[in-house]
Amino acid sequence: MEIPMRLKKLRQKMEEAGIDIYFIPTNDYHGSEYVSDFFKTREYISGFDGSAGSVVVTQNEAGLWTDGRYFLQAEAQLSGTGITLYKSGQEGVPKVNDYIVQHLPEGGTFGCDGGMVSVAWAEGMQRSIAARQGKMDLSQDLVGSIWAERPVLDHKKAWILGEKYAGESRQSKIKKLRGCLEKWKADRMIITSLDDIAWILNIRGNDIPCNPVVLSYLIVEKGQCVLFAGEDIFTQEAQEQLKKDGISFAPYESVFSYVEQFQEKERILVDKRRINARIVENFPKNTKIVDMVTPTVAWKAIKNETEIANEKEAHIRDGVAVTKLIYWLKQNVTTMPLTEMKVAEQLEKFRQQGKHYLGPSFEPIVGYAEHGAIVHYSATEETDARLFPENFLLLDTGGQYLEGTTDITRTILLGNKPTAEQKKYYTAVLRGNLNLCAAKFLYGCTGVAIDYAARQPLWEMGCDFNHGTGHGVGYLLNVHEGPNNICYRIANGPDRNAVLEEGMITSDEPGIYLEGKFGIRLENLILCVKKEKNEFGQFMGFEPLTFVPFDRDAIAPEQMNEKERELLNAYHQKVYETLEAYLTKEEREWLADECAPV
Amino acid sequence: MEIPMRLKKLRQKMEEAGIDIYFIPTNDYHGSEYVSDFFKTREYISGFDGSAGSVVVTQNEAGLWTDGRYFLQAEAQLSGTGITLYKSGQEGVPKVNDYIVQHLPEGGTFGCDGGMVSVAWAEGMQRSIAARQGKMDLSQDLVGSIWAERPVLDHKKAWILGEKYAGESRQSKIKKLRGCLEKWKADRMIITSLDDIAWILNIRGNDIPCNPVVLSYLIVEKGQCVLFAGEDIFTQEAQEQLKKDGISFAPYESVFSYVEQFQEKERILVDKRRINARIVENFPKNTKIVDMVTPTVAWKAIKNETEIANEKEAHIRDGVAVTKLIYWLKQNVTTMPLTEMKVAEQLEKFRQQGKHYLGPSFEPIVGYAEHGAIVHYSATEETDARLFPENFLLLDTGGQYLEGTTDITRTILLGNKPTAEQKKYYTAVLRGNLNLCAAKFLYGCTGVAIDYAARQPLWEMGCDFNHGTGHGVGYLLNVHEGPNNICYRIANGPDRNAVLEEGMITSDEPGIYLEGKFGIRLENLILCVKKEKNEFGQFMGFEPLTFVPFDRDAIAPEQMNEKERELLNAYHQKVYETLEAYLTKEEREWLADECAPV
Repeated sequence: MEIPMRLKKLRQKMEEAGIDIYFIPTNDYHGSEYVSDFFKTREYISGFDGSAGSVVVTQNEAGLWTDGRYFLQAEAQLSGTGITLYKSGQEGVPKVNDYIVQHLPEGGTFGCDGGMVSVAWAEGMQRSIAARQGKMDLSQDLVGSIWAERPVLDHKKAWILGEKYAGESRQSKIKKLRGCLEKWKADRMIITSLDDIAWILNIRGNDIPCNPVVLSYLIVEKGQCVLFAGEDIFTQEAQEQLKKDGISFAPYESVFSYVEQFQEKERILVDKRRINARIVENFPKNTKIVDMVTPTVAWKAIKNETEIANEKEAHIRDGVAVTKLIYWLKQNVTTMPLTEMKVAEQLEKFRQQGKHYLGPSFEPIVGYAEHGAIVHYSATEETDARLFPENFLLLDTGGQYLEGTTDITRTILLGNKPTAEQKKYYTAVLRGNLNLCAAKFLYGCTGVAIDYAARQPLWEMGCDFNHGTGHGVGYLLNVHEGPNNICYRIANGPDRNAVLEEGMITSDEPGIYLEGKFGIRLENLILCVKKEKNEFGQFMGFEPLTFVPFDRDAIAPEQMNEKERELLNAYHQKVYETLEAYLTKEEREWLADECAPV
Repeated sequence: MEIPMRLKKLRQKMEEAGIDIYFIPTNDYHGSEYVSDFFKTREYISGFDGSAGSVVVTQNEAGLWTDGRYFLQAEAQLSGTGITLYKSGQEGVPKVNDYIVQHLPEGGTFGCDGGMVSVAWAEGMQRSIAARQGKMDLSQDLVGSIWAERPVLDHKKAWILGEKYAGESRQSKIKKLRGCLEKWKADRMIITSLDDIAWILNIRGNDIPCNPVVLSYLIVEKGQCVLFAGEDIFTQEAQEQLKKDGISFAPYESVFSYVEQFQEKERILVDKRRINARIVENFPKNTKIVDMVTPTVAWKAIKNETEIANEKEAHIRDGVAVTKLIYWLKQNVTTMPLTEMKVAEQLEKFRQQGKHYLGPSFEPIVGYAEHGAIVHYSATEETDARLFPENFLLLDTGGQYLEGTTDITRTILLGNKPTAEQKKYYTAVLRGNLNLCAAKFLYGCTGVAIDYAARQPLWEMGCDFNHGTGHGVGYLLNVHEGPNNICYRIANGPDRNAVLEEGMITSDEPGIYLEGKFGIRLENLILCVKKEKNEFGQFMGFEPLTFVPFDRDAIAPEQMNEKERELLNAYHQKVYETLEAYLTKEEREWLADECAPV
């Protein structure tokens, strides 16, 4: 058994380092949601390869914490490893941080790789273990030290996104960042989140699957900006262009020695929720850390005119691909031996026919019947289900284009004989989707204040979906991008629950999941726009970016009120007008039927 | 002129005390919303007698900050005083705290009466003035020192609220508070908010108009509770009862010397948002302050079974009074010379006919026609408007009963010929009121997540009301009571935006205000109740406590959807069933017509 051997080696290293309890999270040095192979220490030490989880190891115990998506998988993969599964969120299961505090011996030492946790997290842990007079050692990448064949931390080729796509020059963005330096009387600002760096410099790369970012750090100073990245990732020409704009290059790992050279009493702007603890530990003692949310988190969420115009284009191309797929699927489900994975492949083909398509924006979710009820289902060779002309196929996919990022879910009725139950739930989810997109609200609202529009039809019938209604989406960047979201729970933290601003793009994706039966989710991306301003204030609303028909056969118009039927008909009319020029005659005729008023 | 003379004396005192800038808020020593005359220092120094405002004085300048309700009044009352009016919330008007920081000389001293500000406020100010190396002096009640004929801080008679009304013994409540001492390893807890003290001890008093509280502090210790209050405010019998339950008595002012006797290293639980800075300044240096929200803030918001049963009774009596008033008004408006104040008097008479009525729960708002558009209008001899059989009368009033606190707004159409505009807005406000009360939502929602239900009909037509949709209400206590509220904005602070719990009472009061025309507000109190629990979670909803008809003539049923008409009809049926037994034959017949299905 490999895992017990690895744990044994890790425990040896812990003993040598004087560490009593060691923590291995899922992360990289940048707080990324998805990570490249080099960073998969948690998978290496536990054998569990789900996308989320944390491991805690002591001399006698080892535990893995993961969430409901992965209980079955983790149970199977941990079997025989000696690692206990802790099901996060279940009653009676301790939180991982509480477990650490409880299992730390009085006066003992807690350790983890300081590159893999944020300063804010480390400060919280420091406060927690103070009660046990605990010490903290963030200097040891112990899993790295025993991982003989660790994948290299490689830096793939990167490229420049032209201003006709980005809509704002890097000089302009950097100038605004220097404005922050001035405002906060600071000498430098360290940006560590990869999507913020890509956005600031108008660069893109390939260092994380589906997220076109460049593994790097950026330090903005008064006279220059230093980009710590892989060597030779840019072409000569790109490099010249960046240099001309005042960007200096330094090796990725040299950021740690660079910050050691900061002068005493310098004021350094950092985002404690984003910067890793190892960097800040390298600061000279007398630097003054000024904590603020990375300003570009808010800036990049508000898409500029160019980005918005481009996103509209990208969404037409993406809508054509998905609409063609739906038609193809409806035509062929009775005659071809289709499976979930074949549908994903076919959709990828349709997307590739479009201009400037760069690849998927996340791993496609194609879930047939009961698989649709598993929220983060991803078909594998083993699970890949054969499709039959009955029940729902849930299809949640997205693309990266030079013109932006898409994310769309449609739930397709295979066959044309839905049950009353299927129609009831499909219609309720559809009503939620339409009502949220049609919401008109006063400026100042966060997503918390309008989530009700999407959930009300489901809550009214005693149902719910156990995920957020909407997440922000980047521009040719991460498909999950803060600070805007739509969710009924108030989140903690200064960069959560942002006020909805004109130009923000958010998903609108209510759903319903009936275990063992089917799942329904209907997702459009929606653009926040200004409506009228009057004596009561500035009103705001949304415009859909996604144009793909809903499934007519699954809708029960009599369960919608008149306003909702009007919303559906108006949307479908726009779908038809937007797509018809790009379809074959057969597809167009089918779409016309799909989009006729109910 | 009195005011300039007072300012001159204050400036002399400031000079003697070495204070450069002095702050006079609206407050008492307990953070009360309404204050007794002794505490009206801001009114004394400025001449402005609105319910909200702060004054800042330097040797050369004096400013008053107040909000939109009071701009006209403040302008008039400040005229000739030399005090500048700062209109809070207007563009370009500095916030009072920013003004203080900007006007404090480098190294200068800021002063105020530490009894009149919370520790949290003082700490915030301390941080702000640190940028100017400012010092802070909280020891000086300078307005008090020049106020020759200051009203006495008198302590009115207090009484015990029996368990048949309170539903839980003081022993039980104190036991739970001692549980907090244990949990937080603390030696004592200081409770300073008057409604919390009244709730804990099951006592009521008369020290603040409309708020039946007792001016006091309470210190909960392991062996005893010390109540710092006026001497001889209780009858001998009441005093015995309290002593039997472990309550000791001490003079109100002696709290300051009492806390000086705390032992070093004692741990003291305080609520920094509530306790005044003067008390904490008196703590010995080495006591450990443990900050937490006063636990009874959350406890008392969740009404117990007895309180709920009582509240239902109180609301029937209150509903009878208001319904009788509406009938009386409609009958007499054409024949009698009625005014706003006469209507208030008549309603008070109807309320006094009910059992256990103790008085109004706030100053009544009776606004005819354009007066209804002034949100906090209160009729005076000068403004008291004559009523005519046309336009709306807005009537926002409430009562204190042994069985609880009521708060109801009805907008009554005088005459029976509403304009299309009047019907449109009345119907929209009514839809908001009905939809919020009918909201069904998952446990975990705050009022932020459901506010949309009330505002959507107005937002949809580009209208809004510039106040919260709902506030918590006490039990025979303050008519405004946190931590529950309904509002689309997320508030800062750990005791705001509480999750809605079974047993909480909140108001449901959307409105619309058209300047110079009329105001409409429709307010019921609603009780949070549990609905079904299933695999999706625990669903929650509301039941109305208030039963008084809406104005049939002002409703446009064709502007409501079917569900809304059903909600209205169901409510009206319940109104009729609840009230009919308590009405005269004529009233009953009229009510039957009012409550017939639309």
